[in-house]
Order: sequence, then C-alpha cells, then structure tokens
Amino acid sequence: MLITIANDAPSSTRAAILAASLERGFHAQAMPNGRGGEVIGVAGALPLEGMDLTGLERVQPVHKPFMMASLEARERSVVMVGDVAIGGGSPVFMAGPCSIESIDDQVEIARAVKAAGANILRGGAFKPRSSPYSFQGLGQEGLEALVAAREATGLPVVTEVMEPEQVDLVAAYADMLQIGSRNMANFPLLKRVGKTSTPVLLKRGFAATQEEFLMSAEYIMAGGNTNVVLCERGIRAFDAAFRFSLDLNVVPSIKELCHLPIIVDPSHGTGRRSLVARMAMAGLAAGADGLMLEVHADPDNALSDGYQTVTPLELSRIHRRGLALLEALTGFDNAEDVVCDMATLTRFDTIGEDAGSALERIA
Amino acid sequence: MLITIANDAPSSTRAAILAASLERGFHAQAMPNGRGGEVIGVAGALPLEGMDLTGLERVQPVHKPFMMASLEARERSVVMVGDVAIGGGSPVFMAGPCSIESIDDQVEIARAVKAAGANILRGGAFKPRSSPYSFQGLGQEGLEALVAAREATGLPVVTEVMEPEQVDLVAAYADMLQIGSRNMANFPLLKRVGKTSTPVLLKRGFAATQEEFLMSAEYIMAGGNTNVVLCERGIRAFDAAFRFSLDLNVVPSIKELCHLPIIVDPSHGTGRRSLVARMAMAGLAAGADGLMLEVHADPDNALSDGYQTVTPLELSRIHRRGLALLEALTGFDNAEDVVCDMATLTRFDTIGEDAGSALERIA
Amino acid sequence: MLITIANDAPSSTRAAILAASLERGFHAQAMPNGRGGEVIGVAGALPLEGMDLTGLERVQPVHKPFMMASLEARERSVVMVGDVAIGGGSPVFMAGPCSIESIDDQVEIARAVKAAGANILRGGAFKPRSSPYSFQGLGQEGLEALVAAREATGLPVVTEVMEPEQVDLVAAYADMLQIGSRNMANFPLLKRVGKTSTPVLLKRGFAATQEEFLMSAEYIMAGGNTNVVLCERGIRAFDAAFRFSLDLNVVPSIKELCHLPIIVDPSHGTGRRSLVARMAMAGLAAGADGLMLEVHADPDNALSDGYQTVTPLELSRIHRRGLALLEALTGFDNAEDVVCDMATLTRFDTIGEDAGSALERIA
Amino acid sequence: MLITIANDAPSSTRAAILAASLERGFHAQAMPNGRGGEVIGVAGALPLEGMDLTGLERVQPVHKPFMMASLEARERSVVMVGDVAIGGGSPVFMAGPCSIESIDDQVEIARAVKAAGANILRGGAFKPRSSPYSFQGLGQEGLEALVAAREATGLPVVTEVMEPEQVDLVAAYADMLQIGSRNMANFPLLKRVGKTSTPVLLKRGFAATQEEFLMSAEYIMAGGNTNVVLCERGIRAFDAAFRFSLDLNVVPSIKELCHLPIIVDPSHGTGRRSLVARMAMAGLAAGADGLMLEVHADPDNALSDGYQTVTPLELSRIHRRGLALLEALTGFDNAEDVVCDMATLTRFDTIGEDAGSALERIA
Ligand SMILES: C=C(OP(=O)(O)O)C(=O)O
Ligand SMILES: C=C(OP(=O)(O)O)C(=O)O
Ligand SMILES: C=C(OP(=O)(O)O)C(=O)O
Ligand SMILES: C=C(OP(=O)(O)O)C(=O)O
Ligand SMILES: [Mn+2]
Ligand SMILES: [Mn+2]
Ligand SMILES: [Mn+2]
Ligand SMILES: [Mn+2]
Repeated sequence: MLITIANDAPSSTRAAILAASLERGFHAQAMPNGRGGEVIGVAGALPLEGMDLTGLERVQPVHKPFMMASLEARERSVVMVGDVAIGGGSPVFMAGPCSIESIDDQVEIARAVKAAGANILRGGAFKPRSSPYSFQGLGQEGLEALVAAREATGLPVVTEVMEPEQVDLVAAYADMLQIGSRNMANFPLLKRVGKTSTPVLLKRGFAATQEEFLMSAEYIMAGGNTNVVLCERGIRAFDAAFRFSLDLNVVPSIKELCHLPIIVDPSHGTGRRSLVARMAMAGLAAGADGLMLEVHADPDNALSDGYQTVTPLELSRIHRRGLALLEALTGFDNAEDVVCDMATLTRFDTIGEDAGSALERIA
Repeated sequence: MLITIANDAPSSTRAAILAASLERGFHAQAMPNGRGGEVIGVAGALPLEGMDLTGLERVQPVHKPFMMASLEARERSVVMVGDVAIGGGSPVFMAGPCSIESIDDQVEIARAVKAAGANILRGGAFKPRSSPYSFQGLGQEGLEALVAAREATGLPVVTEVMEPEQVDLVAAYADMLQIGSRNMANFPLLKRVGKTSTPVLLKRGFAATQEEFLMSAEYIMAGGNTNVVLCERGIRAFDAAFRFSLDLNVVPSIKELCHLPIIVDPSHGTGRRSLVARMAMAGLAAGADGLMLEVHADPDNALSDGYQTVTPLELSRIHRRGLALLEALTGFDNAEDVVCDMATLTRFDTIGEDAGSALERIA
Repeated sequence: MLITIANDAPSSTRAAILAASLERGFHAQAMPNGRGGEVIGVAGALPLEGMDLTGLERVQPVHKPFMMASLEARERSVVMVGDVAIGGGSPVFMAGPCSIESIDDQVEIARAVKAAGANILRGGAFKPRSSPYSFQGLGQEGLEALVAAREATGLPVVTEVMEPEQVDLVAAYADMLQIGSRNMANFPLLKRVGKTSTPVLLKRGFAATQEEFLMSAEYIMAGGNTNVVLCERGIRAFDAAFRFSLDLNVVPSIKELCHLPIIVDPSHGTGRRSLVARMAMAGLAAGADGLMLEVHADPDNALSDGYQTVTPLELSRIHRRGLALLEALTGFDNAEDVVCDMATLTRFDTIGEDAGSALERIA
Repeated sequence: MLITIANDAPSSTRAAILAASLERGFHAQAMPNGRGGEVIGVAGALPLEGMDLTGLERVQPVHKPFMMASLEARERSVVMVGDVAIGGGSPVFMAGPCSIESIDDQVEIARAVKAAGANILRGGAFKPRSSPYSFQGLGQEGLEALVAAREATGLPVVTEVMEPEQVDLVAAYADMLQIGSRNMANFPLLKRVGKTSTPVLLKRGFAATQEEFLMSAEYIMAGGNTNVVLCERGIRAFDAAFRFSLDLNVVPSIKELCHLPIIVDPSHGTGRRSLVARMAMAGLAAGADGLMLEVHADPDNALSDGYQTVTPLELSRIHRRGLALLEALTGFDNAEDVVCDMATLTRFDTIGEDAGSALERIA
C-alpha cells in the first residue's frame, strides 16, 4: 500500500507506520512525494484504523506492483547527477566511448563531447563482453580515467558496475552507476546499488517487458535509493539487419506509469552508426528526458562498438537539432499537453456540425 | 542488372534492351530515373557488348535484390495521390476511421480531418478481421462513402484491397490502394496491383524483415507500377502490454536503401490511443514522409480499433506539432544532412588538439 | 453459441435453428459432432425458449471465439485425404519436394517417398517466393505432374493454393489444398476454400498466435468446410542461426483447445537439413498427428529450399524411427493419458507418508 | 587456437605451450580431450615453429569462438554430478520444487521424486523473483534442506547461485551450481563458478542466441571448470498464451557444435503444467541428455511457479515414457545415426530407377 503524509505531519506518524510494518514483517520504505510531503510504500496491507496518524493525507491500498516507481506514488522525479538535473525539462546528453581506452583518450573525448553539448560523460571501465577472450575493460584504471576527465571538464561521469562486490569501488569514482541491459534482472546487484545513494542508470533488458523493467527499478528503490533513471536501449527482434530494435513505444507508455526520468540510447538501440542521429531525434520526440550516445574520436578504431559510435562532430549536430526539436515541441506544451488526458479531450461530437471552422478556431 | 539511359538517348536504345531481355527470358521493366533519363531493371545478366546502345549512361551489374526499389536505381521518388505529393518534402497526413461506418459518418469525419490538417482520407471498406464473425466492412457501400467524402472535401482517398479480384473495383473508386500488413506477402495481390497505375500504400508485414518488405515493393514495381509508398506499422514483439511495437529503426535504414517514400502508422504501431501523439512525433523525427492515423469522431464507439483511434481535435494537435517539429529540423537540413554521409564527416582527429573551440567554430 | 442436437432429433430441429439464425442475421453452420449427432455454431445469442426443439442435447452460450474449431464443439476430428485418415491414430507422412520440378521428377520422387513410408505426396506448383524474379513454380504443369505421380503411386496429393481465383483449378487436381504460412490471414482465400469440400492443410503464420491460427481455421469451417488439418511450421525468432524456430508448445496446447488434427513441418521449422530428423521425432513426441517433410532426390540441386530438404533414404529413417517412437508411447496411452487431466491426477498428498513405495505400487 | 597433445606426450610439451601463451598475454587453458590426450585452448595465434613440442597431435588455428566448448576441441563430454553421469547415454532427470519450502517438505519431495525416477534433486534456495516483495527463497536454510534431502535419499542436489559472493557458500552444500536464465550473461558470476570445480548447470538466457549461450559456457570453461551442462528452458516469443516458447531446435543444433551435454526444462519452457509431459517427450526425442522438471507434492500451493509444476505421480509417468521413448530410438542408433552426416548419406540417385525396392532392401 502507498501511504502519503502531509508536509506538516509530525515525525511520529512516519515512525508509527514504519514500526507497524516492521512488526508485521512488511517491507516499508519512505521517500519524498515531490510536493513537500512523503510517501511510504508498504509491501503488505497494514491495518491503519486505531493508529494515531496525524497528517495522513492519502492511503492507496491498490496500486501497481512497482509501487515506489509508480506515478501513483509521487510527482515526476528529477534526479541530480552532480549538478545536472535529469527529468526537470532540459534534456540530458550522456556521451563518450563504449570502452574507456586510456586516461589521455578519455580526457580528450571528454573535452570534445562537452564542446559538442554533452553534460554527462560516459565510458565503460568494466565491460560485459560476449567472449571471455575479448577486451574486458581497463577496470580500475578506467575509473581513474573518468576522474581525470571529470577534473578536466567538470562533467559528471557514469560507468557500468557489473557485480555487487564492485559497487563500493565504482561508487567511489563515479557520479552515476550504470546497470547494463544484461544485468537488468541481476537482483543481488540491484539490491546492492539500492543500498547506496549514488544515482543509477538502469538499462532495460533487451527482452524485458515494460513491467519487468519497472520492477527492476523497484528493486533499487525498495532498498532506499530513489535516484533511478531508466534507459531504453533496444530490444531483440527478428531482423538480422539490426543489432537491436529501439522500442520507443515504452517511452510515452512509461511516462504514464512511472515518475522516474527515462532516456534513450540510440547507439545500442540501432547498432548502426548511420541510424543514430535520426533515432536520437525520434527518442526525444517520443518524450525521452535525454539521450545516451556512444562517441569516439575515431569510431572505426574504437575498442568496442565502433560500428554504432559517432564522432564528436556528429554529436554536436545531434545536440543542436535535439534542442531545436524540443524547443519546437515545448512551445505547444505550454498551451496543452501532448500526452494529453484523453478523458478530458474535447470530443468532436460536442463541436457540432461545422467541425472545420470550430477546429480552426481552436487552432 | 540496372541500366541507365540518358534523357536524350534514342528510343531504339530502350527497345533494344527490352528486346534482348525478352529473348533471353529475363524480366525487364523501365522507369524514369528522376533525373530526366530512364533506368531499366533486368532480372538477369544481359551481355551488352556488341549492341548499339547510344545514350547508355551507366550499367550496374551488382545491386540489391530489390533492384527497382533500390536507391541505386534512381533519385528519391515522389508519389502523387490526386494532387498530394508524397515524398517531396511536405509531410502527408492520412487520417480517418479504421472502418467506414456509413456515408454520412465518412463525410463528416472527412470534413473534420481536413479541418485538422489531413490531406488524404482513409477508411476501410473491406476489413481483414481475425474473426469471421466480426464486422467485415461495408464493402462497395464503403467505397461509395469514400467517393462522397472526396466530393465533399476534395481529399484523395486511400482504402484497403484484400484480393486480386477486388482490385479493379477498388481502383475504380479509390485514389490509392492499401495493401494491409497481413497481405504484405500475398504475392498474387501484389502482382495484380502492380498491373494498375493506381498508387499503392504497402504496409509492412508485422513480422517482415526490412528486406522482405522491400522485395514486396519490388513485386509491385516489377509489374510496372512504380507509385509505391511504404508504411511502417509496428512489429510483433514479446510484451503483451503493447499490440505491436513501432519499429522506427527501419525508417532511416530504408532511406539508405530505397528511393520510395515511407510513412509511419502510430495507431496500429502502438495499439493504444494515448501513445499515438508522441509516436507520431517520433515517426516524423525519424525521417518519415508522413503519417497514417486512425481518427474517429467518437473513438470509444468506433466499429473497429477504437482503442487506438484519436479524435479530430487530437489530430489537429498532432498536425500542428508535427509541422513545427519538421520545420525545426528542416532549418538544419538546409545546412547539412542529418542522415549524413559518415565517410565525409570531418573526423575529430583532423580537428586537432583544441576540439572544444574547433567544434564551437563549426557550430 | 454452440447447440448440440441428438442423433435421433427430427430434421425440423436443425431447420428451426438455422431459420431463426438467418432471421436475426446470425451466421450459422452445422457439422457432425463425432458422436452421431450434430452441433450448430451460431454467431450470436439466439433466444431458444419458446421454440420447439425436440432432441436438443446441449446449449453452450459461452465458448471459445473459434467455436467450430473448438474442442467444446465436438469429438476429435479425423480428416480423410483420399483414403488416408489424418488424426485417427496412425501418423500421416506428407513428403515431397518444395517445388515440383518436372513431371518425371515428381513421379520419381513420388515412388521414392512412398517406398520410404510417406502416405501423402507434396509438391508446390504455385510458389510464394520473396523475390518476383525467383522461380514461381510450374503452375498448371505442376498440377499435372501431381496427377501423374498420384496415378503412378496411388498417393493422394497436397499442393499450395495462393489466391481465391486459383481455388477451383487447384481443387480439380489436388486431394488437399495447402494454405501457406504467408496466407494464414488471407481471409478471402480462407473463405474461398471454405466453400469447397476439399480437405485443407492450414499452415500457421510465422508470427501468428495460437488463437489467430485457430480463428483462421474457423474462417474455413464457418464456410462449411470442416476438413481442416493444422500445421505448425516454425515461428520467427531472434536467432539468425535458424530460419524459423519450430514452436512445438502449440501442439499439446492446441490439442487442449481444438478438435482438428495438427501436424508438424520440421523442414521449414528448422531451415536446416541436419536438424530435420531430430525435430521430426520431437514433433511426434509432442503429440502431432503426422509430419510434412521436404524430400528431394538431390537436395543440393533442388529448385527451392534445398538446404532444408532431406533425401528419400533419410525419410525412410525418419519414418521407421517415428513409428517406433509412437509405438513406444502408445503402449502407455492404453493405460493412461500422457496429456492427462490434471484435475483427476492422484494427488501426492493422498498417497501418504511413504511416497516411495506408494509410487512403486502405482508404477 | 586449439592444440591437441597425444596421451604419451611429455609434460614439457604442455608446459611449453602454456608458458609461451603466458609470455604473449594469451589466455590458455588445458583440458582432457576425451581420447586420453589433452587439448589446450589458446586465445591468440601462438607461433609454434621452432618450439620442441613432442607429442603434438593437431593444431587448429581456425575454430569456433567458443573454442573450449566446441566439438572441434574434444569428444563429447560426460559430466559427473555425484555418481550420476550426464551425457553418457542414460538420461538424467532433475526434479524438485521451484523453491525449497522447508526442510521437511524438501526431504519428502526428495523421496517422492526419487521413487518416481529422478536421479538429481532440485530446489531453489536463492530465488530470482521479478518483485522485490515476493518470497526470495529460504537462503542458507534452503541449502541445509538440500543436504538433509541428499542424506535421506542419496540424490545429488542442484541449486541456483545468483552472485559471485555466494558461490563458495552454495558450492559447500550443493553438488551442482545452477546459473539461471537471467544470469546467463552475468559474466562475473560465470567467471567465479569457472574458478570452482563444482559442476555447473547453465540455463540459456531467454533471449540469448545459440552462440551467446555457448560463449557463456566458454566463460566458465576458460576459468578451468569444464564440468558444464547446458539447459534449454524456453525463449521469449510473441504469444501471450505461453510464458516462454521451448526452443528445441537448439538441441540438435548444439549437438553439432558443442561437446557439452544439454538438457531441457519443459516446466519453464511452457509455463503450463498440462504441457509439461508432452514437451518433456519432445525434448528427449530432440536429443536432449535429460530433463529438469519442477515437481511439488501440491503444485497449486507451491510458493512459486506452481502453474508449471507437476506432481510426483506425473513425474513417474514422464520418467517411464521417457525411458521407453529413448529405448525405441536407441535401437536404431546402434545401426545408424539419427543426426546423420548428410555428406555420407547414400544419395537417392545412386539407388537407380527402382527406388522403391532399393529402399525396401535398405530398410
Ligand atoms: C554495454 C552497454 O550497454 P547495454 O548494457 O545497453 O548493452 C554500454 O552502454 O556500453
Ligand atoms: C488493418 C489495418 O492496418 P494493418 O494492415 O497495418 O493492420 C488498417 O489500416 O486498418
Ligand atoms: C512454402 C511452404 O511452406 P510455408 O508456407 O510454411 O512457408 C512450403 O510448404 O513449401
Ligand atoms: C528460475 C528458474 O529457472 P530459469 O532461470 O530458467 O528461469 C528455476 O529453475 O527455478
Ligand atoms: Mn557499447
Ligand atoms: Mn485498423
Ligand atoms: Mn519450401
Ligand atoms: Mn521456477
């Protein structure tokens, strides 16, 4: 159940709910509700009658299984990564190489992607590779390269963490922890990052349903870490001409269900360099809060995923077009919602006979 | 092989190639190449040496299997439907109900979608329904409703044709013949519409690869009808929360391979009314030449597909936002291509040490 | 609704139901129920009270949407193709080349597959090919080859029909009409074969759900032709190492829902010659009523699908193993059902403490 | 490269190869080749000329990327779990509940599945559940229940391990470590179990290609643990009527590529109790080396996956039918291979005119 407490509720209210949950063995977790108060997710049906719960604002016994991630729980979240706000209206551009290749290269690419418009730097230090004989990433040296690049540019950095034992190490260096597609249902890893306060970028498993994706976010949030950003990065489909199929339907759909920001990765989501710019635009147009892009100074010679990697120059084009696209759409959003509430939409049959002129007036 | 003839070549050149093909039993078909000349697709290796072929411009023995549809064959095509140009730069908006419900309703919705920005009217007279016991469409009465609506509004009309025997009938009423997703590999039907000169809207099979899709276009073009517009309308994927998954990757990918216009259908491609507007924007941002949208005055009471159908008011919002989005992106297209030729992209390593300022100069 | 009439009901009962359906505009169709009586499927809620319906045995207002195909309607069907019974217990082996290549070849392969154990001959005269430039089948000459082969061997013949206009022609030659995977949702074609009395082999669309598959059978049966045999032939999945993925789950699942026989095609279902024998065994073990196999004297030089085609010798091995496998399983079926009714299964907890010895006694 | 050393080669040969690999930074790992000698997989091109390599039997510079798992490397493997041989000809039956529910229940079900024919006991102590609020398994208490059940019955036990830190703990209790479908590409976990000598049951990721599956086996083997058994457990497909689609094509296909045993899990592979028996038969007929089945005394009240769980009685039926089916097929295997080498198959055209009688003679 979801229990919302007003912003002026005494702390005893929250304490009473948590204690009652503990007593019954129900998992419970509180978080701000984005309107000054707090919401507590309790995994069980707590009998509230008879308890002194001053400031109780709302009780929702029925809700989605991903209660903490659900839009039923709170206002849309804004996740801060360093001083970059994700979900607050301005799009985030995470960019950098698939794999970190050296400290110098990482610093250089950091400067380039920053100049091209990126506000978060990416780069893999620990890499999930299909073959045990492929380059597995620079490891800790890669983490150090990220820190050097952050120092040189001021960009916060995001990098993948692959196992629970690595979480503390990676969190000591990175501003955001990436959970890769292959680990979306690695529950011990999700629980472990849920115990940190470092923001998490959770990539969708390439065969995960929307609900499974949100349940994985719930794993992190149930541990207390509510700083989760979702990332759609392509699903496995039947056409061998594409590495993955970017599944943008989930972007507006998740916006209806979940308060967390969601970004799109058109690099993995296409597997082809020449499709990245167009699908980046499509991702933003679908309502994503930003993009993650693989960028390398010399994509053809990148240590991994070069075929889907663009240059900094291409990134700058994507960045400028992306801002222009969003600005064009935002003009409208001030007046009316694109993801409109269908129930309140003026019905055509109320407009009367002369639909044409009526619509022209509205426009 | 593809054989291009200059615009001032004598007609004997074309005749000689066709005759030689006929003699060898090779299928051959000529079409304009968009630059004043002609291109002939010959399904076989014609030995050209020794023939008098004045005005021969280019011979391509190696090409994609969909030779007539291939971008190797000619400039990008513009397909005229009535006086509406598809593929020429302005987006097309095809809109109307899933099924035609009556003459009056169709005239009314035609007026409404026109007012909301549509330039082609849709509506199914012959409907492919999973159940033999469901409403199968009004048939010929539906065709008459389309004509009435066209007369009332001036909008050209598109409607589905489901079997070869129906083609002449439907073509007598409609400005464009729709081949449905379930019939994308109905080759006798494709051959039959290939024998008309009526423009064809070919919807992608929901489990067709990109290459199979283009081969189906080739079936139509091989018959002589080159007025083909492609339509991505969602593929079958694994998440039961969505009817189909709109597969926008194919839009920029097909633009790289094929000269035909391609539009996007976010109604069938999402199966959910509330996702249509956002995915319409995504389709345009991905590079589509237009949209097909299911629109009904009272979606909840539509005879088919109401759950994915929007109102005329919602269409007008989609239309205005779509134009704004395209205008925002077109500004850039004047200066540089979004689907850029990666080979000619200025490489980062040629920009030198100071990537930042270099990029700033470029921007 | 499904209305069952006893075998001694007066013909007036049946007539009254059909007349009442006609009056209300409900589609209605009668068929034997396999127990001597008849079942009438009515697509609508007929008010039966007040009608004189002597011999009325059962009324089922609630049933699956594929009412005629449903196991709720009747006993398991046996479909006769010539003198071969499909579904009656002995497995059917349909075998022959993908495409008919000449009269002589077809007669020769007919003799060989008969010797190898086949009891129905296949061969495509009209072929659905992805490319308009590929061999499209011998057409009517192919049909004549089938007749010659039938005369030489006595084997009934099955061949694909691709369009409504072809149905009469093909039915004049063939003992069974094959509807290909690409045409499973070609509803005009289904309706047209539903108007004949020739047995139909309906192949599952490679992206069709089980329910869509059964609804397509319903299209044929609703027209009056209840001689339908289903065929699972592989679905489209994500691994490019396989042409299709043979989806055997549907075999026992359809047996729970539907009274029609179902066979398995491991040639198209694997796309690889070396996998055919094993997957043929798997199909029979899953409960299929037989197999369809592509067989050619010289697979490497077959005009189509050679990579998935086996030799007659390999067919004879598959045939003998298949019979042995079924015999091994049939021994058990006499004693108890493999697809057992879970509700009547003796529960472990009724066996008491000493599960081991109890089970040993049962065994 | 794969380097095979004769069984009488001096140990210096092996040492020289390993040393040369180390020097060049190439990963190298030796394993028995099943014919008395050894094969060394070296991840790189070692220049062997000039080295003293007495007893060198074979050098394969070209091989599959999963070199240690490849059938190019060695004879078919037999993996011992306790005293149960997997892959040696007799099928293995792993059975037990999805989740261990208590010590008593686990002992009881162990006795029951043993009586019903199982030779390995399963049961999850650490469970991967989509929801953080679902039962996550008994943990260490579950491991103790497995030990108690092993003591009571003598059955070796298999249970899932979900994270690297858990491996030592689980290996201290279990005879075989299960890697779940969701963790097939959890490479740190694969590396960690590769460092033990405990046999591993590697379940295929539900959206993993055959090659990715074998590469994951390679991760384990590259670490030195060659006791790997593969398990096909269903892939994600498009029909919501099935939890997963059992993809049996991979069974004979993997047999062509890989020396490791492979079993089939028809419980997860169907997600429906009533389909398990038939698909178990299909799995064995496809060539699997055994089965994994979820079995519970009272499936309707199981703590997880009850809908796909069968009773011990049903297991005993599956077991007896499975043995009968294999015996029926084995009779033939003595005479000739079902997965036959197509290249050596007697060609039909060598049989001459009278195919019928020739085949009859062969038969
Ligand atoms: C491996 C990566 O992504 P994913 O987990 O989406 O495949 C990556 O971002 O480099
Ligand atoms: C049936 C339709 O579309 P599709 O063929 O794409 O399903 C339609 O446009 O109404
Ligand atoms: C084309 C054929 O099959 P399908 O329709 O299953 O592809 C065939 O049987 O040759
Ligand atoms: C969770 C299990 O299997 P899988 O990893 O195949 O889903 C299991 O065996 O209980
Ligand atoms: Mn990458
Ligand atoms: Mn529709
Ligand atoms: Mn074929
Ligand atoms: Mn389970």
